[in-house]
Amino acid sequence: MLHLSLDEPSYYWQPVVSSSKPQYGSAKDFEKAISELKIAFPDEDAVSTDPDDVYAHGYSVNDYHRGTAHSVVVYPKSTEDVVKIVRIANKYRMPIVAYAGATSLEGQFRGHSAGGICVDMAQMNQILQINEGDSDMVCQPGVGWVEINETLHEKGIPLFFPIDPALSATLSGMISNGCSGIVLPSGEVIKTRRRSRKSAADFDTTKLFVGAGDTLGIITEVTIRLAPVLPSTVAVVHFPDVRRACEAVKDVMNKGVGIQSVEILDDLFMTAINNFGQSGRVWPTKDTLFFKLQGHSAASLKESAKVVREVAEKHGGFGFQLAKNDEEAENIWTDRKNAHYAGLALVPECRPLATDVCVSVSRLPDLIHETQKDLKNSGIMAPIVGHVGDGNFHAQILFTIDAEYQIAKEVSTRLVHRAIAMDGTCTGEHGVGLGKRQYLVEELGAGTVGLMKTVKNALDPLGLFNPGKAYDDTNSK
Amino acid sequence: MLHLSLDEPSYYWQPVVSSSKPQYGSAKDFEKAISELKIAFPDEDAVSTDPDDVYAHGYSVNDYHRGTAHSVVVYPKSTEDVVKIVRIANKYRMPIVAYAGATSLEGQFRGHSAGGICVDMAQMNQILQINEGDSDMVCQPGVGWVEINETLHEKGIPLFFPIDPALSATLSGMISNGCSGIVLPSGEVIKTRRRSRKSAADFDTTKLFVGAGDTLGIITEVTIRLAPVLPSTVAVVHFPDVRRACEAVKDVMNKGVGIQSVEILDDLFMTAINNFGQSGRVWPTKDTLFFKLQGHSAASLKESAKVVREVAEKHGGFGFQLAKNDEEAENIWTDRKNAHYAGLALVPECRPLATDVCVSVSRLPDLIHETQKDLKNSGIMAPIVGHVGDGNFHAQILFTIDAEYQIAKEVSTRLVHRAIAMDGTCTGEHGVGLGKRQYLVEELGAGTVGLMKTVKNALDPLGLFNPGKAYDDTNSK
Repeated sequence: MLHLSLDEPSYYWQPVVSSSKPQYGSAKDFEKAISELKIAFPDEDAVSTDPDDVYAHGYSVNDYHRGTAHSVVVYPKSTEDVVKIVRIANKYRMPIVAYAGATSLEGQFRGHSAGGICVDMAQMNQILQINEGDSDMVCQPGVGWVEINETLHEKGIPLFFPIDPALSATLSGMISNGCSGIVLPSGEVIKTRRRSRKSAADFDTTKLFVGAGDTLGIITEVTIRLAPVLPSTVAVVHFPDVRRACEAVKDVMNKGVGIQSVEILDDLFMTAINNFGQSGRVWPTKDTLFFKLQGHSAASLKESAKVVREVAEKHGGFGFQLAKNDEEAENIWTDRKNAHYAGLALVPECRPLATDVCVSVSRLPDLIHETQKDLKNSGIMAPIVGHVGDGNFHAQILFTIDAEYQIAKEVSTRLVHRAIAMDGTCTGEHGVGLGKRQYLVEELGAGTVGLMKTVKNALDPLGLFNPGKAYDDTNSK
Repeated sequence: MLHLSLDEPSYYWQPVVSSSKPQYGSAKDFEKAISELKIAFPDEDAVSTDPDDVYAHGYSVNDYHRGTAHSVVVYPKSTEDVVKIVRIANKYRMPIVAYAGATSLEGQFRGHSAGGICVDMAQMNQILQINEGDSDMVCQPGVGWVEINETLHEKGIPLFFPIDPALSATLSGMISNGCSGIVLPSGEVIKTRRRSRKSAADFDTTKLFVGAGDTLGIITEVTIRLAPVLPSTVAVVHFPDVRRACEAVKDVMNKGVGIQSVEILDDLFMTAINNFGQSGRVWPTKDTLFFKLQGHSAASLKESAKVVREVAEKHGGFGFQLAKNDEEAENIWTDRKNAHYAGLALVPECRPLATDVCVSVSRLPDLIHETQKDLKNSGIMAPIVGHVGDGNFHAQILFTIDAEYQIAKEVSTRLVHRAIAMDGTCTGEHGVGLGKRQYLVEELGAGTVGLMKTVKNALDPLGLFNPGKAYDDTNSK
């Protein structure tokens, strides 16, 4: 309905997107840039052109993209340092790619074919402020979420950062809320918003940078919202199939009980966890839901668990288990957290192609069901984990040889088309990076992608910030 | 710390913001535009140049800005109709201002001094889809939130749209979540995202249009997220002063009980409600908290109420009342909803200047306390209502004559400076419109406001969409 084909009168304005590729500096320019970086950062370890280092920063064993080295890696310690780097990049027209926890799965921190500067946030890892009374904190972006929660715990502050991604993930890659210090492609430093929880002071420019994969600016300071530490526990229940598990989740989400997280692991992932050898128990190899529950008292937790059990059993759930204490809860949750590496251990020497589609929760059972059939037909090993409450799931497609990689790509492509046909997205949380660029117009339409490029062009006319990633198709790699 | 004053080398790019005022069409051009609108919309009532109509659409008795008429009001029924209007606006370089529930308080729908087209969304009021299984619905933007909730209730769907603004507010003015159909200043129609709950498909262009006050595009289709209807109730408790009430809220928010809403009304507002004559009870004229609680069962509600009472009394709360049944809960909540008109009735023939600052919750007690002192010294009547959980409050400053209006402006200006000095915002929810433009650079910095203008300039190079509002200072009015 929104795809109009009215006659196009010639008088109205069309967004002008530069279709020419950016002009980067020459190899000689880049050499000069590296010399200036070494002068600007005299510390011995602050600037590296070591071949292993520049390649390691443009590669990851956790994904399926080939590696591309940067020209140089720089380790800033402050916003001012990032400004210095951005100014040198401008002067010599050099691409610039930010790097932090390196948990991206879509090639977000790969180098550019023209070469460029990799800005490693490892030393921008300071916690700047903890505001207990406001349940927020201000950090540099290189701080890891695990460290944040450990720090809060050690200081006896009853708050935590309520997210749960890969263990080494840092704020850089997962900015979720609040104001940010940003270095723009111009070298200008802005603060996108104030620390109040709510603001209606025009469109929230913070949101331009969230999810943009450092294509519009480099985030150098982050305010995150914290949640109170409340009594919590973990429950597990098995199902005859994924469809009924999904339906149980849909039902339980409308009951108003306190659910922090609900995850599905299919029978293959449960097998993988048993094989992995890190678990203290042997799980039934059945499609399984893991619930993390929270409440204001032990009594309310118990009542929530009762509701979850009743709803689950109504949908064919069986073998319901509630952790007996905090230690058991943590152990069970660790089994779920180990899924990624347990899955990889299923096939020696394999690499994973992790899919990331997300659809409305009502479509999720069909989508997973059809995908399981497709995976079975393809003959390739692919355990499935899903954030069911969001309609988001990952098939971890395991390949070793090129022929398998081709099959994985084909299954993944069919899955993306299937999700988009269900009014879903090619990526629920991993981002576009290099791996999902080709689906963006199909998902969002040429107009919306054109709008993104118009904004990019207005902010970064030289095309220096993480070029060739996300909506930016100027790099064909 | 983020305000750098490094030497500015000349080589790096500076955002180019057109500082020249937009060139609008002549009076003759606008006449031609109106003729074309009448041809494009042949229905008798679709295009109005009636002087009362064009003025009524550029004025509101609920705020403190003077009225400015539009040249013409048009009533589209569809996205395609809006495209037609935008194309005619482009052809004749005519400003365009969207209008919906008319509950804005900062002059957002005032006409432009150059004249222009007012696009009234009254007939774009269709509910297009209700997706019960996904807890969302798709609507045209002219639908009111009250109608949405009545429709869901009548259809027996156990979901609701969990917001609670002015009764006549429509989606247009308060887009809160989900994907949107947008008509861009170019006349191009885009859909910003798919219906899945989560997406990482680059920066979310939806967010560009949320809070932008129709300066970047006109929203023509909205997907909103719904919440389950759960058992709920209302509790009221009084306090010796606002400071202790705020502290109770801070404390209770960390207990993990289900709170839909918590509002503070000061003693003056409680007096106003008693005087207003719509309430079935006589309230103690004390600073009062209204809690709307929700839970998964009557038992969990009761337990939550117990926690709220204990925490409140620890902070000096007294006279705790819990509604005995749903009817009583609704009556009590209606008293709180009547605050705006009850306040206005305090002073015959007055108009209100409603302030809207928002700070971190830890700063709210000090901010309200200092503001109460300032208001008292000014001798002007100004009841206070606050969304305490967010750190947001409104003083409804009541004026009748010019001298009082000047005092109201001065108090409001001091309040904004005070809030910004506390790392807060000039507007928590009413937006910038005409009334808060002068504070934006103080709050966000010239860089961030420049960024907004750069985006505006890239999307709307002719400056046609709601010119002179929000970050756009090209209209000096």
